[in-house]
Amino acid sequence: MARAVVLLSGGLDSTVSAAIARDEGHELYALSFDYGQRHKRELESASRVAKALRARDHKVFSLNLAQFGGSALTDESIGVPTGREESQMGADIPVTYVPARNTVFLSVALAYAEVQEAQFIYIGANALDYSGYPDCRPEYFAAFERMANLATKRGVEGHPIHLKTPLLHMTKADIVRAGLRHKAPLELTWSCYQGGAVACGACDSCLLRLKGFKEAGVTDPVPYATN
Amino acid sequence: MARAVVLLSGGLDSTVSAAIARDEGHELYALSFDYGQRHKRELESASRVAKALRARDHKVFSLNLAQFGGSALTDESIGVPTGREESQMGADIPVTYVPARNTVFLSVALAYAEVQEAQFIYIGANALDYSGYPDCRPEYFAAFERMANLATKRGVEGHPIHLKTPLLHMTKADIVRAGLRHKAPLELTWSCYQGGAVACGACDSCLLRLKGFKEAGVTDPVPYATN
Repeated sequence: MARAVVLLSGGLDSTVSAAIARDEGHELYALSFDYGQRHKRELESASRVAKALRARDHKVFSLNLAQFGGSALTDESIGVPTGREESQMGADIPVTYVPARNTVFLSVALAYAEVQEAQFIYIGANALDYSGYPDCRPEYFAAFERMANLATKRGVEGHPIHLKTPLLHMTKADIVRAGLRHKAPLELTWSCYQGGAVACGACDSCLLRLKGFKEAGVTDPVPYATN
Repeated sequence: MARAVVLLSGGLDSTVSAAIARDEGHELYALSFDYGQRHKRELESASRVAKALRARDHKVFSLNLAQFGGSALTDESIGVPTGREESQMGADIPVTYVPARNTVFLSVALAYAEVQEAQFIYIGANALDYSGYPDCRPEYFAAFERMANLATKRGVEGHPIHLKTPLLHMTKADIVRAGLRHKAPLELTWSCYQGGAVACGACDSCLLRLKGFKEAGVTDPVPYATN
């Protein structure tokens, strides 16, 4: 069974991505990051999802990107946007963009993959809903994979790493449908940018998620404050 | 004055690289890593070097790569090689190789550079003396730079980052000469893989360094156990 490092934030997308990796026959090595998020709610979800998917191992890697500042997700001085019109999303790079986040996460995943001799890295990135994030585009991932195979002992020795982005061209509704098809534990996920007892239902992330479930014609199993 | 993030381990190479960045007219943002090294001696050197070079800021980023294992520099179960014949060096990928280390370090440097709006990242990598490390080759750095400019907001918005590797094609003797020419504080550096009060003089890193000073015709200002 080939090994796969799966980036697992505890959100909807990474959970579906990990469920796909499992269904593609891989042994899962889940990797989450404690990167100075304002709340740890999604890390609790990641832990539950890793167990539900029977990951061989789950590492939570501490990485204090907040010390650099520059994002609403890690910098207390920048407000998390809520209730924006959907048409405003994706027009500019959002303030929730964390500098070089995917690059840092994928680099650590690469280190983990090399030590575990994993052939695959799965990331639940999506080019449609988050088009404002430069590090969610296909050309970025292609460039990362190319770099990775020049960077590592295994790559150089003829065991290339494959960077898999199964959700890249899916709409949020497609992702929900894929999650149901692959029996992803959607009820354990957490997508909200806020850290409340239930999801806020108003931040960009909640709005996108709710829209996805609505379009897929199913009810989101996660409770919301504004339901 | 353009800003440059300089990777600063506290060793000879990164110190000379940072001194070159300073002499090229940049304001320095030094970045060191506490990555589970067996000893912290080189971090003390990094701090002294950053002060000596009048860096605008110096961040020490904690990053526990040791939790993945796989290298003699972070894994207690693998011995650090000493006293090898020089001809043996570089033939294979050495056990002191840390998985994906430069990729992880450069990714964090990229995050720092983006937040500081730095145009340059300097790394003191060398393709000659460490030819066994896949992530010290010119094609690797070119691929990283390309990826970096697809990854980041600043790259996408027409402010590309330039990855500078001023020592890439230098011999160790060339690096020593460059250090003298750029008035790098060589006396503050630490290259030894061991963490003693003075350098061991026997590990690969000490042997390469001593050979470099000898070929440059100058005395290493750092004291050695075996002198």
